[in-house]
Amino acid sequence: MLLPCIVSLIYGDHEGFYFIAVAAFLLLAGFLGTIKKPENFTIYLKEGCVATALSWILMSVFGALPFWLTGSIPSLTDSLFETVSGFTTTGASILGDVESLPKSILFWRSFTHWLGGMGVLVFLLAVIPMSGGSNINLMRAESPGPSVSKLVPKIKTTARVLYLIYLALTVIEIILLLLGGMSLFDSMTLSFGTAGTGGFGIKNDSFASYTPYVQWVAGIFMMLFGMNFNFYYFLLLRQFSKAFSMEEIRNYILIIIASVTVIFINIINMYENAFSALTHAFFQVTSIITTTGFASTDFDTWPTTSKFILVILMMVGACAGSTGGGIKVSRITVLIKTIRREFSSYIHPKIVRKISMDKRPVEQDVIRSINVYLITILSVLIASVFLVSFDGFDLTTTFTAVCANLNNIGPGLGGVGPTCNYSGFSFFSKYILMFDMLAGRLELFPILIIFHPRLYMKK
Amino acid sequence: MLLPCIVSLIYGDHEGFYFIAVAAFLLLAGFLGTIKKPENFTIYLKEGCVATALSWILMSVFGALPFWLTGSIPSLTDSLFETVSGFTTTGASILGDVESLPKSILFWRSFTHWLGGMGVLVFLLAVIPMSGGSNINLMRAESPGPSVSKLVPKIKTTARVLYLIYLALTVIEIILLLLGGMSLFDSMTLSFGTAGTGGFGIKNDSFASYTPYVQWVAGIFMMLFGMNFNFYYFLLLRQFSKAFSMEEIRNYILIIIASVTVIFINIINMYENAFSALTHAFFQVTSIITTTGFASTDFDTWPTTSKFILVILMMVGACAGSTGGGIKVSRITVLIKTIRREFSSYIHPKIVRKISMDKRPVEQDVIRSINVYLITILSVLIASVFLVSFDGFDLTTTFTAVCANLNNIGPGLGGVGPTCNYSGFSFFSKYILMFDMLAGRLELFPILIIFHPRLYMKK
Repeated sequence: MLLPCIVSLIYGDHEGFYFIAVAAFLLLAGFLGTIKKPENFTIYLKEGCVATALSWILMSVFGALPFWLTGSIPSLTDSLFETVSGFTTTGASILGDVESLPKSILFWRSFTHWLGGMGVLVFLLAVIPMSGGSNINLMRAESPGPSVSKLVPKIKTTARVLYLIYLALTVIEIILLLLGGMSLFDSMTLSFGTAGTGGFGIKNDSFASYTPYVQWVAGIFMMLFGMNFNFYYFLLLRQFSKAFSMEEIRNYILIIIASVTVIFINIINMYENAFSALTHAFFQVTSIITTTGFASTDFDTWPTTSKFILVILMMVGACAGSTGGGIKVSRITVLIKTIRREFSSYIHPKIVRKISMDKRPVEQDVIRSINVYLITILSVLIASVFLVSFDGFDLTTTFTAVCANLNNIGPGLGGVGPTCNYSGFSFFSKYILMFDMLAGRLELFPILIIFHPRLYMKK
Repeated sequence: MLLPCIVSLIYGDHEGFYFIAVAAFLLLAGFLGTIKKPENFTIYLKEGCVATALSWILMSVFGALPFWLTGSIPSLTDSLFETVSGFTTTGASILGDVESLPKSILFWRSFTHWLGGMGVLVFLLAVIPMSGGSNINLMRAESPGPSVSKLVPKIKTTARVLYLIYLALTVIEIILLLLGGMSLFDSMTLSFGTAGTGGFGIKNDSFASYTPYVQWVAGIFMMLFGMNFNFYYFLLLRQFSKAFSMEEIRNYILIIIASVTVIFINIINMYENAFSALTHAFFQVTSIITTTGFASTDFDTWPTTSKFILVILMMVGACAGSTGGGIKVSRITVLIKTIRREFSSYIHPKIVRKISMDKRPVEQDVIRSINVYLITILSVLIASVFLVSFDGFDLTTTFTAVCANLNNIGPGLGGVGPTCNYSGFSFFSKYILMFDMLAGRLELFPILIIFHPRLYMKK
């Protein structure tokens, strides 16, 4: 929290004090918390999930204090919404006019994205390998199995490498934006939003007023941050053929190219020239598939086909092992392969085919957990749309609002389109949407398990 | 086709001749077809699927002839659409004014539903057991395994019992409707539409102008035809406890009660009294969950919550082993049980729980095929919405149009709501929707497999 303080000092606004107060309080609380040492250090899957979920919730509560204390967002629920949206790298906002906010608050708002993105990378390392079998995660390159004890020393090294990649990409983007004539403050906040695949802008029209150069830089970096970080890891290890043969990366690029092409053809007549249409198509596709949620144009006015593609991309999401949300390209790839296998079993009933990815067979357990993931995310989606639908918004607004929050995108269509915000929803709906953001960010189970009654029973 | 002839004679219109002509042609073709006896009688799964798919397509082509030849529907595509919609018991229509049609044509139109419903019952008996492992079908009570040779003699008996149940329920409904003061023609056509869970009405406003008595009778019978016919089979065998302990039936009733309750509360202020609201809630819920598609009111004007429930019910569908479409309650039950199992594995990682239904364990193969079914139906849904979206209708219209056809309901929301029809779609979209109706009706794989290139390769 000291960074926004410095920003506050530079721009001479008075919000810096609040950041220091909250920071001091947290330091004290953290100190008190470590005095009492727990007797048993072994963390099981169950405890791991609960600890992760609770720490994200606590982080959001304290992160909301600067917004609330400074009066930038008068309502506590709204402050919380904005912070959850920030840390989960969603980017859904209840603010209609962001340009009127003090610079330090804006900085903190975008910085939550960057911290959130970092948090996701740790989460991927720490919790998912514990659930066992799920080999579609970042650690695949290193960890042969779900043995936690052996992983612990390696996690630290890997985490350091990841953070360096994350930091390096962010810095490169800041430099490229600076070269485009943008101020340091703008470059930094927007890069934070891109890196975390968050999507909080610092202008009311998000990215619409920036130059095509800036839009292309941001678009390309959104795409880069949506890639499986394993890819960069392989590049660092100079295993180029391994990097470029990653099926997830290939499919991710293919989906982007196909979507951009269709949308480009679909919207070409809406813009003054083809280049402009291509820019918007590329920017919007990368923004949505990586679940960032920046807008270079009001895509709610696009034709149905383009809008539908965007909604599907919301659900698809980025690569596993990136800062992006959604179902993830690798999961979708495995799911589609199960359909192919089913067809084969109809045509050649006697041949048993195994599903493989990156030339390795995918274990039955992984397929099972991916299937359950799909069913669970659909159930959460349906339940949330049902609960939010009582607010009386039309179907498209309600559905895309939940979809955009559950998959950590931010803006949806209709009443929550890129020119609108979430301030119109009831308090109840806002808490549902916050729950969705957290559920989507933490891959569902860690957050859902808190509500499981059997967790609180001794056995 | 002789039945509509009689109707034609009674009402003295001139369409009877065409029915005789088509019938005579079919008789001749059928006779020629049986002269050449095939050498090999063994039918494999692959051939079974293709034969089923082709026979439904052929049936639709010939069924369309009366509409086209009599000039009732001038366009061949539209005639085909109406017939596919009839035989697949969808009930989606391209006709704006059905009341102007000759009685014999109206009779044939509703009769295709009844035949289609019968066809589905045979299909359930003949093809699904062959695909093996899928024990959530009608034959569960009798067939212990997927051994086809042993089933063949039993299929005939079971088919006869099923037809008798189907016929008996239809006759009871006709009598109850007659008691409500309806004419024989109306009672018969509407009962055909209910029995097949089709949904072609004979009035432009579907069921809106009928008395509440008729609406309740139709509502209750829709519910009955949406039940697993195994239930009636158990009743006939006097195994009452077995019948009422069927999990699928219980969940089906539970879903109906829950949906009616929420919608009733949601729409109570829209109607003059509570009874009227309850009638519409009950009628619409049973109509949609059984994928019939009759409308007692314009539910497109209902609040978002109610509309969303209806869309979800479209996807859920009726029970397996009924004439209804959709994903089926039993599949949904198993899918939700896999989520529960996943939670347990998080909380008690060492306990391996099996999923069971009706107190029997569900085999891993069945769970796999249900998962694949879900993924496939979602893929077909997404691909179809994409293709139909080029027509430029709004998202709700496009999505619910595909949803209503793929799940064999008929009317959707927005531009395809109960007061509208499908005539506005392009020829291309109409063929996509016809494909969806057939795919939904034949449980996806038999119809999808026709498009699989490897089917045509010798191996």
